[in-house]
Amino acid sequence: MSTKRLEAFSDGVFAIAITLLVLELNVPAGDHLWDQLKDEWPSFAAFFVSFWVIGIIWVNHHGVLDHLARADRGVLYLNLLLLLTVVFIPFPTALLAEHLKPGEGDETTAAVIYSAAFIAMSFAYGVLWTYITKRKDLLGVELTDEQIRRTSIRFQIGTPFYIVQLAFAFISPAIVLALNAALAVYYMVAGMRSPDAEDK
Amino acid sequence: MSTKRLEAFSDGVFAIAITLLVLELNVPAGDHLWDQLKDEWPSFAAFFVSFWVIGIIWVNHHGVLDHLARADRGVLYLNLLLLLTVVFIPFPTALLAEHLKPGEGDETTAAVIYSAAFIAMSFAYGVLWTYITKRKDLLGVELTDEQIRRTSIRFQIGTPFYIVQLAFAFISPAIVLALNAALAVYYMVAGMRSPDAEDK
Amino acid sequence: MSTKRLEAFSDGVFAIAITLLVLELNVPAGDHLWDQLKDEWPSFAAFFVSFWVIGIIWVNHHGVLDHLARADRGVLYLNLLLLLTVVFIPFPTALLAEHLKPGEGDETTAAVIYSAAFIAMSFAYGVLWTYITKRKDLLGVELTDEQIRRTSIRFQIGTPFYIVQLAFAFISPAIVLALNAALAVYYMVAGMRSPDAEDK
Amino acid sequence: MSTKRLEAFSDGVFAIAITLLVLELNVPAGDHLWDQLKDEWPSFAAFFVSFWVIGIIWVNHHGVLDHLARADRGVLYLNLLLLLTVVFIPFPTALLAEHLKPGEGDETTAAVIYSAAFIAMSFAYGVLWTYITKRKDLLGVELTDEQIRRTSIRFQIGTPFYIVQLAFAFISPAIVLALNAALAVYYMVAGMRSPDAEDK
Repeated sequence: MSTKRLEAFSDGVFAIAITLLVLELNVPAGDHLWDQLKDEWPSFAAFFVSFWVIGIIWVNHHGVLDHLARADRGVLYLNLLLLLTVVFIPFPTALLAEHLKPGEGDETTAAVIYSAAFIAMSFAYGVLWTYITKRKDLLGVELTDEQIRRTSIRFQIGTPFYIVQLAFAFISPAIVLALNAALAVYYMVAGMRSPDAEDK
Repeated sequence: MSTKRLEAFSDGVFAIAITLLVLELNVPAGDHLWDQLKDEWPSFAAFFVSFWVIGIIWVNHHGVLDHLARADRGVLYLNLLLLLTVVFIPFPTALLAEHLKPGEGDETTAAVIYSAAFIAMSFAYGVLWTYITKRKDLLGVELTDEQIRRTSIRFQIGTPFYIVQLAFAFISPAIVLALNAALAVYYMVAGMRSPDAEDK
Repeated sequence: MSTKRLEAFSDGVFAIAITLLVLELNVPAGDHLWDQLKDEWPSFAAFFVSFWVIGIIWVNHHGVLDHLARADRGVLYLNLLLLLTVVFIPFPTALLAEHLKPGEGDETTAAVIYSAAFIAMSFAYGVLWTYITKRKDLLGVELTDEQIRRTSIRFQIGTPFYIVQLAFAFISPAIVLALNAALAVYYMVAGMRSPDAEDK
Repeated sequence: MSTKRLEAFSDGVFAIAITLLVLELNVPAGDHLWDQLKDEWPSFAAFFVSFWVIGIIWVNHHGVLDHLARADRGVLYLNLLLLLTVVFIPFPTALLAEHLKPGEGDETTAAVIYSAAFIAMSFAYGVLWTYITKRKDLLGVELTDEQIRRTSIRFQIGTPFYIVQLAFAFISPAIVLALNAALAVYYMVAGMRSPDAEDK
C-alpha cells in the first residue's frame, strides 16, 4: 500500500501521545501555589523532556517513511510496534515524575523503568529501520550503502546510550532525565547536519 | 463521496482510541514500586493486547477501504458503527484489567463484557464488509468472487472465535486475554499471507 | 484558502470529541459488577447517543464542506464556533449521565443544560450553513435555489426540535436522551434520502 | 521536506489540545446543580477563552505555513517549540480556573503563570515567523518587504500585550482572562482585514 495512510495514522498517534503528556500535570489548589508548583518540578521537567523526545522521534520517523515508496505488512506491523513504545511513554514519564518528587518513594525503580521504556522505543526504531534497508524494493529513493551505514549508526547509537542511562538510574535518578534531554539534543544537531537533512 | 475524508476521520478515531489506552495505567506512589507494579500486571497485559488488536483492526480496515472507489451514506453509517465499537474498547479493557487484579471482585462478569465488546466489534466489521461486497458499484478494484469469499471467511471467523472466547470467561478469565492475543496473531499472519497483502 | 486543512483540523476535532466520550464511563471495582453496571445505564445510554449524534454531525459537516471550493476567514471562524459546541458535548453528556443515575440529584437542570448545548450546536451549524449559501463565490458546486432551500429546512429543523426537547427536561429528563436519539435517526434517514446523498 | 506532513502533525496537535480543554470541566454531583455550576464560572470562562485563542493561533499558523514551499529542520524544530507552548495551554488554563473560584487560594500567582504561558507561546510564534522570513529559499509565495513588515508587526504585538496582561495579574486576575479574550478578538479582526486574508 501507499505510505500515505500509514503516515496519517502515525502522525495522529504521535500528536496524541505528545499532547496527552499535559494531562499528567497536577493542578494544585489552595494557597502558596508557587511553593506547591516548585515541589512539582519533576513533573514539569519530565513533561518538557518527553515532549521534546517524542517530537524528535516524530521528525526522524518522518525522515524514515520519506524513503519509502510503499509499505508492506511487515512495515505496518513494525511501525505499530514502534507506535506501541511511543504511546507507552506518558506512563513511565508520569512514574518518574511522581517518584522524583520530594519525599516520594522509589526513585531508582522508576528511573529504571523510564530508561527501559526508551530502550524498547529505540530498539523498535532500529528494527523498523533495518527492515526497511533490507527491503530495497520498498524504497522510493536510491540510498547509497554509505548513506544507509551513516543513518544506521545514528539510529543504533540510541540503544547503547539508553542502556548507559539505565545504569545511571542506580546512581542518580534525576540525571536520567538530564541524559534523556541530552540525547534529544544530540539527535536534533545530528539530524540538522546529516547530508539528507534538507531533502527529508 | 470520496473515501479520503472517511479515511482521515477513521484514522483519527483509531489513533486516539489506541493512545487513550495508556491513560488507564495507574501510576502507583510510595515505596516498593516494583511490587506494586507486579500487582498491576493485568493492566499492562490488557494494554498490550488491546493496543495490538486495535492496531490489527486498523490495518485490516485500511485494506477494506482500499477496495472502495467511493462511499455512500450506508458505508458512512456502518463505518461509524464499527468506530463506535472500537472507541468503546478502552472501557472493557480497563474493566477486565481492574477485575483481574489480585483480590478484586468479579472476574467472570468483566471477562464476559470484554468478550461481548469484541463480538460487537467483529460483527460490525462483518456487516461493513458484507455491505461493501454487495455494492459492487462502490468498488474501485475488481474483486473476483474467489477473493471476496476468502476474505469474507477471514473476517467472519472472528465472531464465532470471540463467542468461544466468551465461553472461557466462565472457566478462566485470564485465558480470555490470552485468546484475544492469539486471534490478533492469527490476523497478523493471515493478513501477511493473503494474496492481496502486497497490494493493500 | 483551500478547504483541505480546514477539513483535516475539523476531522481531528470530531474524532477526538467522539473518542473522549469513553473516558466518562466509570470502571466500577469490587463485587456485583453486573448490578453496579446496571446502575450506570445512563452513562452508557448517554455515551451511545452522543457518539451517534457527533457522528451524524460529522457526516453532515462533511456534506457542507464538500460544497466549498475555498474558505474565507468567515468560514474559518464560524467553523471554529461550531467545533466549540461539538467539543463541549462531552461535558453536558457526562452531566446528564451523572444526574440520571438512581438517587442522584438534579435531573431537570442537567437535562436543560444538555438540551441547551445541542441548541447551541444546531444554531452554530445553521449560521455556518447560511453564511456559506450567501457567499456564492466560495461554492465549488452549483447549488440550485431549490437544493439550498431543501437543505436549509433540514438543517434549520434541528433548533426548534431541540427547544421542544428542552421543554421535556421539565417533564421527564430521561426522555430528553430518547428524543436526542430520535433526531439523530431522523438525520440519518433524511441524509440518505436527500438528492445529493450519493454525491456528497 | 514538503510541508504536508508538518501541517498534518500540527493540525493533530492543535485539534487535540483544543479538545482536551473540556476534560478540565468538573461534573458536579448532588443537588443544587445550578448553584454549583455558577461557582464553576471561571472554568467555563477559561475554557471558552482558551478554546478561542488556540483556534485563532491555528488559523494564523495555517497562514504562516501556507507561505512555505518546503520546510527545513529549523522550521520543524521551531514549529515543535511552538506546539510545546500550545500543548501546555490546558495546564495554566486549569490553574487559573481553579484559583479564580470563590474561596480558592492564589489568584495572582495563577494569573501570572497563565500570562507567562501566553508570552512563551507568542514568543515561540514570533521566532518561527522571523526564521521563515529570513529563509527566503523556503518561501513558496513571493512576499514583499511591506507584507512581511505588516505581518511581523501583527505577530510581534502579541508579546508586549501579554506582558501588559501579566502586570494586570497583580491588580485583578479576572481581568487577565478578559484581556486574553480581547487579544483573540483583535487577531480575528486584524486577520480578516489583512491584505492576504483571502489568499491564505
